[in-house]
Amino acid sequence: MFSVAESDPAFAGEKAEAAEARLRTALLKAQYARLSQARRSLLIVIAGIDGVGKGASISLLNEWMDARHIRTLAFGEPTRQEQSHPFLWRYWRNLPAKGNTGIVFGSWYGPLLAEAARKNPDQEKIQSLAHATREFESTLASNGVQIVKLWYHLSQQAQKKRTAELLSDPDTAWQVRPEDIKAGKKFERLRNAAALAISLTHGEHAPWRVIPAADPDMRAISTGQAVLAALRETNRLPSVPILDTSLIAATPRPPSLQTLDYTAKLTDDEYDEQLAHWQSRLARLTQHGKLQDTPVVLVFEGQDAAGKGGTIRRITHALDARQFRAIPISAPTDEELAHPYLWRFWRDLPPHGNIAIFDRSWYGRVLVERVEKYASAAQWQPAYQEINQFESQLQDSGALVLKFWLAITKDEQLKRFHEREESPFKSFKITPEDWRNRKKWDAYVQAANDMFEQTSTRDCPWHLVSANDKRHARIAVLERIVNTLEKASKGKKKP
Amino acid sequence: MFSVAESDPAFAGEKAEAAEARLRTALLKAQYARLSQARRSLLIVIAGIDGVGKGASISLLNEWMDARHIRTLAFGEPTRQEQSHPFLWRYWRNLPAKGNTGIVFGSWYGPLLAEAARKNPDQEKIQSLAHATREFESTLASNGVQIVKLWYHLSQQAQKKRTAELLSDPDTAWQVRPEDIKAGKKFERLRNAAALAISLTHGEHAPWRVIPAADPDMRAISTGQAVLAALRETNRLPSVPILDTSLIAATPRPPSLQTLDYTAKLTDDEYDEQLAHWQSRLARLTQHGKLQDTPVVLVFEGQDAAGKGGTIRRITHALDARQFRAIPISAPTDEELAHPYLWRFWRDLPPHGNIAIFDRSWYGRVLVERVEKYASAAQWQPAYQEINQFESQLQDSGALVLKFWLAITKDEQLKRFHEREESPFKSFKITPEDWRNRKKWDAYVQAANDMFEQTSTRDCPWHLVSANDKRHARIAVLERIVNTLEKASKGKKKP
Repeated sequence: MFSVAESDPAFAGEKAEAAEARLRTALLKAQYARLSQARRSLLIVIAGIDGVGKGASISLLNEWMDARHIRTLAFGEPTRQEQSHPFLWRYWRNLPAKGNTGIVFGSWYGPLLAEAARKNPDQEKIQSLAHATREFESTLASNGVQIVKLWYHLSQQAQKKRTAELLSDPDTAWQVRPEDIKAGKKFERLRNAAALAISLTHGEHAPWRVIPAADPDMRAISTGQAVLAALRETNRLPSVPILDTSLIAATPRPPSLQTLDYTAKLTDDEYDEQLAHWQSRLARLTQHGKLQDTPVVLVFEGQDAAGKGGTIRRITHALDARQFRAIPISAPTDEELAHPYLWRFWRDLPPHGNIAIFDRSWYGRVLVERVEKYASAAQWQPAYQEINQFESQLQDSGALVLKFWLAITKDEQLKRFHEREESPFKSFKITPEDWRNRKKWDAYVQAANDMFEQTSTRDCPWHLVSANDKRHARIAVLERIVNTLEKASKGKKKP
Repeated sequence: MFSVAESDPAFAGEKAEAAEARLRTALLKAQYARLSQARRSLLIVIAGIDGVGKGASISLLNEWMDARHIRTLAFGEPTRQEQSHPFLWRYWRNLPAKGNTGIVFGSWYGPLLAEAARKNPDQEKIQSLAHATREFESTLASNGVQIVKLWYHLSQQAQKKRTAELLSDPDTAWQVRPEDIKAGKKFERLRNAAALAISLTHGEHAPWRVIPAADPDMRAISTGQAVLAALRETNRLPSVPILDTSLIAATPRPPSLQTLDYTAKLTDDEYDEQLAHWQSRLARLTQHGKLQDTPVVLVFEGQDAAGKGGTIRRITHALDARQFRAIPISAPTDEELAHPYLWRFWRDLPPHGNIAIFDRSWYGRVLVERVEKYASAAQWQPAYQEINQFESQLQDSGALVLKFWLAITKDEQLKRFHEREESPFKSFKITPEDWRNRKKWDAYVQAANDMFEQTSTRDCPWHLVSANDKRHARIAVLERIVNTLEKASKGKKKP
């Protein structure tokens, strides 16, 4: 892997200057072409053993290209806020918009490289970190984010020489950071770790490029050339996502809208009694503090007029306003459209001890976007897998994820549409769009059933709730939430 | 103030139902009218002694209005991240967009009410908190955010009765929070504190409305009516901001572009030597950790082609990429236009120990927006004052704020424009817009000089730097930054 770089190739001064000038012009041209198309964003991952000039290369790209459309995304140790979210959260939040370029320093490779560089590395952990990285990069690549990863490398001898030279002058000594000296001492181990990490995560959709870093001109020009090649590569098809069937179809029999029993009913008295009972249990559970380290994510989907809003209000009624956020999902804004579809949901994830209630969700990708053809098959088909991975990442980070489909029959929907039209303060809830969607009832049922089949996983199953009787649906949902939270809080100590 | 509420008025059941139905229809109509105009957002502040049904009122507004366009902004104790920013940061960040409604629970009144309710309140602190509140609300009001503040009140007797009733049933006992019981015990003190806080912060642009809270129907209908009145009030002119001349014109003589000496120059050798010297001092200063609790804000303004980008790169070259963010400010996005102009800058404020470098800034309001008439005089004139307050809030929270104007002469600009046009990798920096702006040279000089006069404050003066010689400008800026940081780090211990 490092064979070329190992020889520490250098550039002759004169030749470099001319090459640089050509490269800068070409880089700017390529950058503007991407900006005007705004089809994909570019993430440049900057990695390499410390003390090889990574920082200088970032400055260089900012100088050579139009810095107003580049964002340097530099990450250090995770902050407290970042620690309370899945590991990839901070990278998701900071993705550049389509057309733009992000330079990532302190990337998601940190844990993998650290584990691989240990004296006795845990092979299973390495495989699992590499797997998570491939999943992440694959999801980005199939959603408009191009990735190129630059590994800066020089021989141990050259690293030592560079450090010594910088240290010899008080005006340049500051360029040598303590971690550079540390890196020099365990050079061999770091080098082998890098080779392993690179081989496990090199893919066509997110390639590694090794940059010879000993000679500053060579380093600069190689960096520029790698970025130029990436910028010019605009026509590549998105990668086929890595298939991981271990998550899918693990429930014995995925639920379906046709086989659901729609007759369940509660009387007014039963409802009032049970509502008070379950709300009171929910309130006590969320008040007592045992779940204060647990983020909770509730997802509500269902046909139009199935009663999602009313059900959500029965839940929030038992919660402290500071404890939850209800997030209605409607058509994406321009900013959201310029990012992968999952981006906006990553931004809305709840911190520890908080409850996020999604009124519609990321499942829009395989429901409305599929049926209305806002997304192509090449876009919505990989989404099942991407969504399973997303929810699995949430759960791995300690979150509880519960997803409900409130199901009504076609006749019941018609009745409710008419009721809404006749009520002075419900008529706003019914629009021509609702009637248009109703015409595609069967297509939506098909999309929902496919979705249950592909995303009702062992750890995160779909809960189908008959909502022809609103009272029944509300109680069924409350009961499920309370039981899940109670199970999760068992064994947890009140802090 | 509380005289009507003190009598705990109630609604007869039948009458209430009819009033409610009318109110809901009217609220929806008014909400949609605002949404379609999208001229102003509405902030509803919910306040009152604990245990008077504030939470229920928030649920109610979400039920009566279209909840998709309402966001409940509930704040508890500040998080660690929030603590590392000015107190108002979290409120700024969460402002609703024009047309939308935000319901604020746990508002900026917390500290003022807490101080006023102490046994021996600090009168000076109360005045200063009330002053900060008036400033904040005035800035919002003159920038498209309408504010209405609801104070929920009931008599001590009614509060006691309500608490006892709820506690008597195990299914409703959870509705009584520990703070409600606490509030009941020092009711008189809280009531007087509220009366004081309200009288100090009641203004035409951000009025308080007292809601009688004893009877649920009365409470609901009064809430709805107060919100309805606010929603309907769309034609009011923005308030005149509170003038506070203590901040302005405190420098002996504000700088001016005409009186600046443009002849300062450095030779190549002097430049190389001084650059290495100051960069090395800057690097050591930011590495040694004494400033790790101090956010730093650097602002760069100046004529087109004055060399802001090059100067910024000479600074960032000495910094760790994880330590700073360079923020180029261009035309606002749709989302930014839907918020007060300062909103996007609040979002970009650096956390502790970080440096935010603004390449153009909030001063655009009184420069390009004034000259190009994007903002009316009624909009840009109050901005001087608002900006002084903004910077003063940053400094009060511990931030260092330094602002530079890189100044070139008209002839020098012409020379640089031509150079840029001729260079293959600089021509992107020159656009027809630059030539158009150049034609308004005198208007921009006038705007800049007015700005220096109005915003060069004692604590946050403008630094005008002659940039006809780029080398001189870079060194002058670096030197000023290093000296300021060195002064700030003196006496601070390395953690």
